[in-house]
Order: sequence, then structure tokens, then C-alpha cells
Amino acid sequence: MTVRTDAAGNLIGRYPGKVEGAAALATGSHIDTVPSGGSYDGVLGVLAGIEVVRSLKETHMHLNHPIEVIVFTDEESSMIGGQGMAGTVLLNAPERYQPKIGGDIQMHLESIGGSWDELATAKRTRKQVAAFVELHVEQGSVLERSGKEIGVVQGVVGMQRKAITITGQANHAGTTPMDMRHDALVAAAQVILAVRDMALCMPSQPVATVGYLTVAPNAVNIVPGQVELSVDMRDLSNDCLEMMCDRLERILKTIAIATNTQIELTPILCVAPTPAVSQMQAAIATVCDQFGYSYCHLPSRAGHDAMEMGRFTDMGMIFVPSQQGLSHSGEEYTSPEQCTQGANVLLHTLFRLDRAYPC
Amino acid sequence: MTVRTDAAGNLIGRYPGKVEGAAALATGSHIDTVPSGGSYDGVLGVLAGIEVVRSLKETHMHLNHPIEVIVFTDEESSMIGGQGMAGTVLLNAPERYQPKIGGDIQMHLESIGGSWDELATAKRTRKQVAAFVELHVEQGSVLERSGKEIGVVQGVVGMQRKAITITGQANHAGTTPMDMRHDALVAAAQVILAVRDMALCMPSQPVATVGYLTVAPNAVNIVPGQVELSVDMRDLSNDCLEMMCDRLERILKTIAIATNTQIELTPILCVAPTPAVSQMQAAIATVCDQFGYSYCHLPSRAGHDAMEMGRFTDMGMIFVPSQQGLSHSGEEYTSPEQCTQGANVLLHTLFRLDRAYPC
Repeated sequence: MTVRTDAAGNLIGRYPGKVEGAAALATGSHIDTVPSGGSYDGVLGVLAGIEVVRSLKETHMHLNHPIEVIVFTDEESSMIGGQGMAGTVLLNAPERYQPKIGGDIQMHLESIGGSWDELATAKRTRKQVAAFVELHVEQGSVLERSGKEIGVVQGVVGMQRKAITITGQANHAGTTPMDMRHDALVAAAQVILAVRDMALCMPSQPVATVGYLTVAPNAVNIVPGQVELSVDMRDLSNDCLEMMCDRLERILKTIAIATNTQIELTPILCVAPTPAVSQMQAAIATVCDQFGYSYCHLPSRAGHDAMEMGRFTDMGMIFVPSQQGLSHSGEEYTSPEQCTQGANVLLHTLFRLDRAYPC
Repeated sequence: MTVRTDAAGNLIGRYPGKVEGAAALATGSHIDTVPSGGSYDGVLGVLAGIEVVRSLKETHMHLNHPIEVIVFTDEESSMIGGQGMAGTVLLNAPERYQPKIGGDIQMHLESIGGSWDELATAKRTRKQVAAFVELHVEQGSVLERSGKEIGVVQGVVGMQRKAITITGQANHAGTTPMDMRHDALVAAAQVILAVRDMALCMPSQPVATVGYLTVAPNAVNIVPGQVELSVDMRDLSNDCLEMMCDRLERILKTIAIATNTQIELTPILCVAPTPAVSQMQAAIATVCDQFGYSYCHLPSRAGHDAMEMGRFTDMGMIFVPSQQGLSHSGEEYTSPEQCTQGANVLLHTLFRLDRAYPC
């Protein structure tokens, strides 16, 4: 491969194709990790991409399209690598990308051969990259639990994140009769269960979580006066996400009336879902059939480089199982056989894409 | 009055009775206050007691029984004054009474004329104090809301306090499907609502509160792995309290199974209710009828000196309204007219007790 680093610090290996001027078929992932993370998250997709090219080279084989193996910059935190390619970096707000380890993003980009000032040059188009397919560990336990070897990713879910403040009236837990309370925590309990029930009754199987909650004054003998909590909702369908947002607003109004509290909702984050194109899903599934690998379709409920790539070109993802669903942990594990199956599916999916996409 | 200080630092004024050797009828309250507290909590009962004796003296009147007006030591924190009279001080554990302001309890007792080493001498008996009646502001809003001028206290509620630890499994809020979660906060929400419902459906109108709750790891994007919370239950009926404890244990088992969590319950505090004797309640109610004061019967859901006195002699309490139910606050307010009504009821209740109790 010829190798270059773009302005976003992405390391791009390119293995030439047979057809002059054809758009690339790209694969890859990231090699950065969360603190105390495992050895598979990201790395598997990079090594498998290199292995794919090595296999082609060993058999003196070239596809019609060039193959690119991309090592994306900082997937775990800023996603600046993928965003650089998609042209979605907030160029006027470098402070949004400041690393927690100190120093500024400009300095860190330069240290790996990138350049904040030239970030716009990292942007790619569909004419340059016809499709992107990423192999990644599932980071969940759907595959393991259902006994499937390969996950055909339907897309990367979108996210709606809200902050909710419930204001009641702090009062003496002894002297305030039950029917005279404005208990913010009782209201919060109803919100928590409503959020869960809402997700459970949607046909698309979204997830919805209250992960953060604080109580004030938070004393054994005081009726809670205020609760702050977060709601994080994710689904592949934007319609479902919007329906959940609407329903949440209506439920909060009902709970506020029922509990004599005031409830305030603030949107925090809104990320649109990135679907995997059906052609890509079909290619991956067909390869699994060809090899006799069991598989199922599932959404990716974590963010990935493919999410950013999907903003400007066709995207697909291949998942292999994570033992016990563990990830972002030193105990992360996928067996060598499972990694091999994933790399095989990646190689043969690229063969199919090479035939499917015109040069 | 002749005035003395006992070993618990209680200030005891004694106005002699007509019958030699008769047990005293006692009243009083406390003059200590919480930080930033108001001007009525405790003080009203002391001033009203002094006013009662002043009225007797001005009219050259003596009851058959001596009258004692007691200023109890440290009601707001250790209750060492009331406990000293009841003989319930933990003499082997002075550290339980250490004031938060620094110094040790021995030193503070001595500074007001008491003595830790001689605390046992502060103990009184029914033969010395035939009955105790305390005037106090309600510190709640039952009287104000029901438009009553006087509260005839049925007793001081007992308390059961529990610590609950719910252990689930912290996990990625994106990649963990709803049906594979062990969400400790969803379990906690069910506990919070069950605790409230339990109190609401008991006929004796107990109160039950989850006032303290913390979540771990408490992050927007992580399914909560652990929740710690408190349950505080109060009622006049010990049977009701025990029934609530039993029911709570059963409910926790059901919730643990339904939410795939482990729930651990630890008893923290158990205080038995102190009923006001019916003779005393009847005397107060009759006086109200006599003066045309509106009244209702209600439990005291906060602790009082009368609670400790009730452990060895007949006890009763008279409540007057607290504006907006506010207490332990600089905004605490009871009008001069309401204070006067309370003092009148106190005086005439003592008249009735003097006739009712044999010398």
C-alpha cells in the first residue's frame, strides 16, 4: 500500500485497483482506546483491513477498485478523524475537540502529522470513496446470546439526550402528610419507569436510559425538593426517536400534574441515525450464507467511524461477538476463530462490492 | 417558683401545690434551636408554662399538685434533657451525645450546671411527676389546612428507618438491549413508588419517605449498576410500622426478581411510638369545647421532649398552627392570638388534670 496521513491525522493505506480513476472501496477502524480499554475495540477492524490487502497481495490479486485501509484519528473521544473525512468538524470551535489529557487539539493533530488549519483538505466525497465497510467487535451481547457468529449491522443508531429538572417542595419527612407532599423523587420514579416502558413498547426495540440522577437536599428525613436526571434514547429510526421525544413531553406533563411538581425538559444532544445501505447488508448476509456462518441483523447502538463515513458515502458494518458483551474493559475478548470469520466476511464483502459498484 | 438545674442540665421551676407530698404536674419544652431556626419551636411551650404560673400567682391561686415548668436540655440534637428525666441516656456511650460544634458532652453539660457523672440522679418517676403536658407549634400544616385552632396530639409517632442497597449491572446505555439490563435505578424507582403506595393504603395514615438516593456510576450513558437509598416510615401505631416493615421486605423480593437485581435491606433506626394517654386528650378537647376553640386530633410526626417524658409518665401535647407549616426556618410564625389560645388551653388543661389526678 502507499500510505499517507491526511490533515485530520488519519493514516490511509491505499492498494491500487485495476481500473484507472475508480473510486476506492474503503475499510478500517481506529487504534486509539479508552483508558484501561481492551485489545479488540477498533484494532480488529484495522488489522483485518491490512490482512485483506495482504491476502490480495499474496495471491497477486487486484480488485477493479482501489482498496483503502483507514486508521481513523481519536474515535473514542472527538471522532475528529471520521468527521474530518465527512467534513463535519466544527472548524470554528477547536475548543470542542480539546483532549482531556491537556494540550490543544491543534498541537495533538500536528504531533501525528495532521493540521487543524488544513482540516478542510481531509474531506472526502462519494466520487473518491464509493463505499466504506467496517469490521468491529459488537461491544454488546446480542450475538453471543443468540448464538450467531456474524452481525449484519443495520446502521448506527441516532441519539436524543435530554436533561430533566423536577422541582417539588423540600419538607419535613415526619410532619408532612402524604397527600400534602410535592415529592420530586416520587415524580422522578414515575419518569424512570415511563422512560423504560416507552422503549419496551416501541416495535423497533429502541433503548432508553436514565443513567444520571441527583436528589436535593438528599437527606433521610427530608421530602426531596428537587431531582435532576438525564434521559438517553437511541434508535435506528428517526421517526421512532421523534415519537419517543413527543411521548416523553406528554408523559412529563401528566406526571407533573399527578405529583404537584414542575418538570422542565432541556434537549442536550441530538444525533441523526446513520443507516447502513441495504445493498451492503445484503452483500454481508450473502457472504455469511456462502461460508455457512450464522448471522442476524442488528443495529449498532454505539458510535463508530462508519457513522461519520455514512454521512457522505454508502456504509456498512460487520460485527463479531464480544464475550459476555464486555467492552471498554481489559476483559474484552473475541476468539481468534471469531476474528478470522469477521476478516473473511470483510474480504468477501469487498469482492462483492467490487462487482456491484461501477467503476 | 423555686428553680434548680438537674444533672442533665434541665432547668426546673417549681410552683408549690396545696397538698403536701403530691406528685407534680409538669409542663415545659426547650429553648435551644436548630441553626437559622425560628422563634416559636420549643420557646412557646416554655414561655406559656411560665405564663401559666404567673397567672396562678397573680390570682394568689395554688393547685392541689405542684406545677413544674421544665426547660429541657438540647431537644434539637441529643434529647439528653428528656432522656435524662426518663433514664434512657446511654451512660456508657457519651460519644453518642457529642455536639457537632466541638467539645465533649461532659464539658457542655457542666457549662450549664449539669454533670455527666451524676446523670442518673436526673431520672424522675411517675410518683414525682404524675403527668406532663407540652404546648408546641405544629411544625406542619394540618391545622392550618383544616382551619383548626388547636391540635389534640394523639401521641408522638414511632419511626423505622432502613438503608437499601440495590445492586444491578453497570453497562453501556447504548449497546445493552432493554431486556438484557439489570438496571438498579429502575428497581429503585419501583421501590420509591411502592414505599409511597404502602403508606397511602394504610388506614392509620402513616408517612413513608425515600429522602436519600445515590446512583453509581451516575453517568448519562451508563445503565446504573448500584443505587443506595433510605426509607423513613413513621406512624403512631407500632402494629402499622411492623406491618409496613414486613410488607417492604416482601415488595423488595418481588422487585429484585422482576428487575434482575439484588436488594439488601439494613435496619438503621427503630423508635417506638409514644401514645398520649386518652385522659389527657379528653381533657384538652374538653377545654377547647369550653372556650369554643376549634380542634382536631392528630399525631405528632416530629420528636419532642414529651416523647421522652411519656416513657415514664402520662403525656399529652397541645399543638397550635404553624403558618404554612414552616418550621426549622426563620420564617416560622404563629400569631400572638394563636399563642394565647394555646396558653389558655394549657392552663385549663392543668386545672382539669389537677382535679383528675389523685394527690
